[in-house]
Amino acid sequence: MAKLWQKANQTTDAKIEKFTIGNDPIYDLQLARYDVLGSLAHITMLAEVGLLKKEELSPLCQELKVILASIEAGEFEIESGMEDVHSQIEYLLTKKLGDLGKKIHAGRSRNDQVLVDLKLFMRAEIQEIAEAVEKLFNLLLIKSEAHKKDLLPGYTHLQIAMPSSFGLWFGAYAESFVEDVELLEAAFRLANKNPLGSGAGYGSSFPLDRQLTTDLLGFESPHVNVVNAQLSRGKTEFYLLTAISQIASTLSKLAMDVCLYNSQNFGFIELPDSLTTGSSIMPHKKNPDVAELLRGKANKLKALPNQLHLLTSNLPSGYHREFQLTKELLMPAIEEIIDGLEITHYLVEHMKVKSDLLNHDKYDLLFSVEEVNRLVVQGIPFREAYQQVGKMIEEKQFDGSQRNLNHTHLGSIGNLGLDQIQAQKDVAYQRFGFEKVNQAIARLIAS
Amino acid sequence: MAKLWQKANQTTDAKIEKFTIGNDPIYDLQLARYDVLGSLAHITMLAEVGLLKKEELSPLCQELKVILASIEAGEFEIESGMEDVHSQIEYLLTKKLGDLGKKIHAGRSRNDQVLVDLKLFMRAEIQEIAEAVEKLFNLLLIKSEAHKKDLLPGYTHLQIAMPSSFGLWFGAYAESFVEDVELLEAAFRLANKNPLGSGAGYGSSFPLDRQLTTDLLGFESPHVNVVNAQLSRGKTEFYLLTAISQIASTLSKLAMDVCLYNSQNFGFIELPDSLTTGSSIMPHKKNPDVAELLRGKANKLKALPNQLHLLTSNLPSGYHREFQLTKELLMPAIEEIIDGLEITHYLVEHMKVKSDLLNHDKYDLLFSVEEVNRLVVQGIPFREAYQQVGKMIEEKQFDGSQRNLNHTHLGSIGNLGLDQIQAQKDVAYQRFGFEKVNQAIARLIAS
Amino acid sequence: MAKLWQKANQTTDAKIEKFTIGNDPIYDLQLARYDVLGSLAHITMLAEVGLLKKEELSPLCQELKVILASIEAGEFEIESGMEDVHSQIEYLLTKKLGDLGKKIHAGRSRNDQVLVDLKLFMRAEIQEIAEAVEKLFNLLLIKSEAHKKDLLPGYTHLQIAMPSSFGLWFGAYAESFVEDVELLEAAFRLANKNPLGSGAGYGSSFPLDRQLTTDLLGFESPHVNVVNAQLSRGKTEFYLLTAISQIASTLSKLAMDVCLYNSQNFGFIELPDSLTTGSSIMPHKKNPDVAELLRGKANKLKALPNQLHLLTSNLPSGYHREFQLTKELLMPAIEEIIDGLEITHYLVEHMKVKSDLLNHDKYDLLFSVEEVNRLVVQGIPFREAYQQVGKMIEEKQFDGSQRNLNHTHLGSIGNLGLDQIQAQKDVAYQRFGFEKVNQAIARLIAS
Amino acid sequence: MAKLWQKANQTTDAKIEKFTIGNDPIYDLQLARYDVLGSLAHITMLAEVGLLKKEELSPLCQELKVILASIEAGEFEIESGMEDVHSQIEYLLTKKLGDLGKKIHAGRSRNDQVLVDLKLFMRAEIQEIAEAVEKLFNLLLIKSEAHKKDLLPGYTHLQIAMPSSFGLWFGAYAESFVEDVELLEAAFRLANKNPLGSGAGYGSSFPLDRQLTTDLLGFESPHVNVVNAQLSRGKTEFYLLTAISQIASTLSKLAMDVCLYNSQNFGFIELPDSLTTGSSIMPHKKNPDVAELLRGKANKLKALPNQLHLLTSNLPSGYHREFQLTKELLMPAIEEIIDGLEITHYLVEHMKVKSDLLNHDKYDLLFSVEEVNRLVVQGIPFREAYQQVGKMIEEKQFDGSQRNLNHTHLGSIGNLGLDQIQAQKDVAYQRFGFEKVNQAIARLIAS
Repeated sequence: MAKLWQKANQTTDAKIEKFTIGNDPIYDLQLARYDVLGSLAHITMLAEVGLLKKEELSPLCQELKVILASIEAGEFEIESGMEDVHSQIEYLLTKKLGDLGKKIHAGRSRNDQVLVDLKLFMRAEIQEIAEAVEKLFNLLLIKSEAHKKDLLPGYTHLQIAMPSSFGLWFGAYAESFVEDVELLEAAFRLANKNPLGSGAGYGSSFPLDRQLTTDLLGFESPHVNVVNAQLSRGKTEFYLLTAISQIASTLSKLAMDVCLYNSQNFGFIELPDSLTTGSSIMPHKKNPDVAELLRGKANKLKALPNQLHLLTSNLPSGYHREFQLTKELLMPAIEEIIDGLEITHYLVEHMKVKSDLLNHDKYDLLFSVEEVNRLVVQGIPFREAYQQVGKMIEEKQFDGSQRNLNHTHLGSIGNLGLDQIQAQKDVAYQRFGFEKVNQAIARLIAS
Repeated sequence: MAKLWQKANQTTDAKIEKFTIGNDPIYDLQLARYDVLGSLAHITMLAEVGLLKKEELSPLCQELKVILASIEAGEFEIESGMEDVHSQIEYLLTKKLGDLGKKIHAGRSRNDQVLVDLKLFMRAEIQEIAEAVEKLFNLLLIKSEAHKKDLLPGYTHLQIAMPSSFGLWFGAYAESFVEDVELLEAAFRLANKNPLGSGAGYGSSFPLDRQLTTDLLGFESPHVNVVNAQLSRGKTEFYLLTAISQIASTLSKLAMDVCLYNSQNFGFIELPDSLTTGSSIMPHKKNPDVAELLRGKANKLKALPNQLHLLTSNLPSGYHREFQLTKELLMPAIEEIIDGLEITHYLVEHMKVKSDLLNHDKYDLLFSVEEVNRLVVQGIPFREAYQQVGKMIEEKQFDGSQRNLNHTHLGSIGNLGLDQIQAQKDVAYQRFGFEKVNQAIARLIAS
Repeated sequence: MAKLWQKANQTTDAKIEKFTIGNDPIYDLQLARYDVLGSLAHITMLAEVGLLKKEELSPLCQELKVILASIEAGEFEIESGMEDVHSQIEYLLTKKLGDLGKKIHAGRSRNDQVLVDLKLFMRAEIQEIAEAVEKLFNLLLIKSEAHKKDLLPGYTHLQIAMPSSFGLWFGAYAESFVEDVELLEAAFRLANKNPLGSGAGYGSSFPLDRQLTTDLLGFESPHVNVVNAQLSRGKTEFYLLTAISQIASTLSKLAMDVCLYNSQNFGFIELPDSLTTGSSIMPHKKNPDVAELLRGKANKLKALPNQLHLLTSNLPSGYHREFQLTKELLMPAIEEIIDGLEITHYLVEHMKVKSDLLNHDKYDLLFSVEEVNRLVVQGIPFREAYQQVGKMIEEKQFDGSQRNLNHTHLGSIGNLGLDQIQAQKDVAYQRFGFEKVNQAIARLIAS
Repeated sequence: MAKLWQKANQTTDAKIEKFTIGNDPIYDLQLARYDVLGSLAHITMLAEVGLLKKEELSPLCQELKVILASIEAGEFEIESGMEDVHSQIEYLLTKKLGDLGKKIHAGRSRNDQVLVDLKLFMRAEIQEIAEAVEKLFNLLLIKSEAHKKDLLPGYTHLQIAMPSSFGLWFGAYAESFVEDVELLEAAFRLANKNPLGSGAGYGSSFPLDRQLTTDLLGFESPHVNVVNAQLSRGKTEFYLLTAISQIASTLSKLAMDVCLYNSQNFGFIELPDSLTTGSSIMPHKKNPDVAELLRGKANKLKALPNQLHLLTSNLPSGYHREFQLTKELLMPAIEEIIDGLEITHYLVEHMKVKSDLLNHDKYDLLFSVEEVNRLVVQGIPFREAYQQVGKMIEEKQFDGSQRNLNHTHLGSIGNLGLDQIQAQKDVAYQRFGFEKVNQAIARLIAS
């Protein structure tokens, strides 16, 4: 219907342009802020090494900040016919400053320009994702504490196994997200390297000061080798998509638990009407559509690192045009993971946990291990105690009506270890060093 | 032919046993060492908290060390009919020590037992992988230095672009591997958390001291929450497979470059006979089979994180039996990546780089940017200089015979920045903290 | 930036609605035509079995055809607040016909309604894809014939191997596409089964005549079992995405050949300006961007069957809400593969093939097998002839200046077998039976 | 431990040989039979076109049949140091017949030799897979008929929805497997094309009669174009792996249902002891390990088409050495899918279905749609009836104690349509044309 070539009235040129440009201008809009920042740093450096006169620097900086303001006001746009965000910004500069505007590209190629934009963009988005994770983490800890006495059957093999609790369940996901953040940190570290100066991938004969742009933009270090800087195209996106896919894995598992616990055959939680929908033919249905869509969207995200691999596999070193397509994978994924985290926040906040779930006698057997352990404490070797209790169960002599639990070790029902989980989170977040980055950017804009 | 059910004389039981056990005993052999270490730590703790008498501890430790010695001597085996490595070791203990041997399972489940084995195993294998990477890294730096003057055409879009050099090319891969190690570090961090005490995933009513086993085994910290400890099954393997897949990506790209550079149409390198093979019908062929297989094997490894996702996707929380199958993905992958790194080492060591490649006049255009930059330095705005040179080329007036290059900035042909790349590597490797881990294990064995 | 939850002024309900509905209305627009067709067939059947009075049928049919006309005129839209295309159409009917409009849902669920829409949609799109393949196939045959004398080096292992020709190269892709169509046929066969009557997946207590709707809609047969009809959700999309991914594989390989052949180091073809772009810093560049993007887009498509697997894996039987998300994978993929086929058509049509490529003496060795075979025909065993020629090459005695080729067998340089390839294509296309389907739909609309 | 390079005493040559050969000889053993068949056809053709004397043909054929007999007796082996199965067979021939043995390679390359072996191998294995599917299909139909009265809750969104039955459930999987076979047929069709004569991918100057080898080996047709014949390497394996992955999808879904239905919270089936195992700490557990492993192994298989894509992506046309690695993906997958089908057969045969499941009043709401439909038949528009019943449920006035069901339409609880499913299966299997293939092979061996 909307297929590219079916528009009979379209010229071939227009068709090819649509094929090559596609939705790029939309994605590029997200890079505009970072393109300005990169240019600010680049020209400051050009002036420092004598490739730009001092008096040329000031009007360029001033005009770039005007553009930055328009971006932040949501007024910036990439005009039709303009190839990309870089051209648009250079066009605006030249319109205002004449030939001077053309000078900002000296010592750069679009290859390292888009790469620095992407690095700065990813760095900022990683902060946003980390914050959305943190917000959910905080809620999970609160819920864990609040429901530490609400017991839940623990399953292995989908068979009832041993007593668990909602305190344990919420806390598990809290700690799990802390561990997911490890991959986000790896992505941050790769995003936090400066590719500026790598040009088209083979550097420049200009005497660029790459350490200066590194410092101005708050990067941890440069990608030293310029060929390697270009090798990081696709790879940085892969790291971030991998981190996103891991967070998505945790969301998906949580959503699966919710769908199962909400089934009448489990009946462990209740969902508010805002999170369920009815059926077109079954008047009794309250389907957990939001949790199902959360699960599905998360599972889709898990496919992206592999899709990126397929996109870049077996390409020799050096830039290839399809690297442009990584934006199509990355940018929607960032939005989707943040939405997913926030929907999960709402879900966790509003799901109603049932109490006294284990009172039903169908859960007697959950307590068989307690009995085994009781015997062990009396001095019976574990394997024998196990067999004794097994025999009692087989002969229907097992009395599981005792619901006393005395789990005391770290991380168990009776000792959730929330402080330690909190401490792990704090350490993990400090390693990022977001503050240092943010300060550098603030300085650059203020300068 | 070898299909499971076709063996008419096999009993159903035997068929099901083959289906459920499969190659597990072979994989479990790799865990034997770590199973003993886990048990040593566990029983030391049991004695500390009073679940084992002090006089019981000593013979158990002694016997476990005998088993450890037999494992290191390559004499340990999992006997036919034995379900897994845990059963085999407990069987050996019981054969020697009677009922006492049965006591080591108190406060444990096979779920946390295999999990601690896998964590210790992965921790050790990550060290091995890191060392193989380091060895290759060292060689690449040496080669980069040695060939810093050997120029090479640099390509973008598979079109000749600008001058590059073998110094740059070797150095790029060196730095690239340092960045790959970030993901290995994330995997190490997740592997370096103690799951012991999580039992079947819901902890234990025994007063276990989880911090003690954490310290004894040199773990950084416990997985605090016991449900989360079990959530790390599959996830830890995913992190490691992801790191392996990233290293494989770099190997695959390097191998692709080698295959291309070795093609007669490029002709940039020569491979020794040991790395090529002939054709069955074309007497002139010297095919780069080793590089092609390296590329192919690396590409196969890139598929594994996704395969793990498919294995574990949409399973609710709690243990499921198919987690056993992660070993089939992980263990061969570790072997393959180390083999791949070592084959690459041999390849890099023995490939012969051609000199004076750029002398041919077909490479004149590589130097067009140099001319543009020369004009810029003379004060002509970049965009204008670009157009002047473009016009000269179009009108066949461009003289590219000048081969003078003066790249001075960090990471360029003339300034490879090898010291800085080396320093990045050193920092990355220190973050692992291998030594601390190794010392703890040495202490545990010596105790 | 555009993230769901950041709009501070959005109500929670609006946020959840955006999460659950997403871009569905956009995708649903593509189903509108098929929803009307499905309803026409369904109510005709309802009248036949007495669930609708004969006098009720006529106004409903008439009104549905009015809606169909508005869809075809591009005037139909899904109003804001309307959940899906089914609701919109039922709303329009009810607005016009009152309570009568509500009767069309009897004996249906949204589950089988959307399923029949998707089946009809996929059936039609498969025809479109098949036609785009056919158009490209026809061009490739023409090009093969036109360039049958233009020799090309044939490579194995990226090493020059034996003489090939552009006739052979174009013809190979022609036949390859015919084979890709096998998977498209499998997808068509699964799409060509009627799910109507399966309701929510458990049928209906109404006496539905499922064979009648099958005939009216031109389906080959019903999905007999109603639970299985719902199992085909996701699975039908998987078949089609698999077929698309296979066509994409072929496009990607062709594009890779083009990028390589266009490199200065090969220099086998020339691309028109409309298919290349320049560099921002290198004035000499003519980059094959279109071919690269074709390769990249095709490679992205190859990831989709796996993404669908991840979406649906380990979901138990029965409908789940995330099945809605298959549309997000399928619909853009259909558009992209058709665009890709058409861009390839343009590329093949306009690339300029170079002649006399093999005259250069670097290609002498391509002819070594000819010499071996000449010796064999003289009676020397193959293995000995091979060694003789090998020795000549090693001792630089081989004379490859003879460019005489005499390949006569089917499918070789001298006998391209284009008629047989054409015949294979015709047989493959007849198996679809598009005509029967189209006639049924035409009858239904005309009735 | 077993890593390639750690064997200090291994020579470099041995290490590289292990890297390049790997497990190939093991996989090649499975090709031995087909290599002989391919050679029989090839030399018969050589004699026909005069490249082999008639008196040379007979001893070669005789000796090849001796080798074939040794293969079928399980006595054939690939000797250490022998590169592949082709070399081994040629070696045996030459040992017996001297120079004459060397003549069979005339007009062939290892590339088309291994390709024809693989095609014949896949053709035969597809037959085996189809037979294993058929056996399971037959059992499912029997079970469906046997349990047509055993009702089961039907779920959508994991919420209880409408009544289903085990008759419906078993029948659904039966029909589902028939649809899976469509992809197997596409794979068969691609496997059933003759690559012989394509040589290294560029044909031969010998006057080969490719139609004759096509007929002798029972192929449907030749791959006409010789370049395309080589393009089918990897692609044919992809088709077969895709078909396997689809069958695996169905197995995995069935296994997930079994694990869920076996959970105490569902309790719909019971598994025999042979299919469950206990827990090391919980004496009450009976875990459905076999079903879980079935699910996991099936899910692993679903990853293989993507792994193949990664292996072959972005390789230009022409043979590359890593194609050898497709055997490592394909051959174990064939074995695993057949094992999986047979384990499933055992599982379906021995699972015990519970009766009277719906009697519990928690399933009252399953019957709400029946009530809606009752009202519709009385003339109330569907949407109104739906609201009336919805209101009754909300006000706890709904009486679901009536368990009368009257589903009569095709494919519903009361009319399973097993005959039609059987007929679909018969048609699908006839399309393969296995018999024609088998007869040709029998003739070739007998000739």
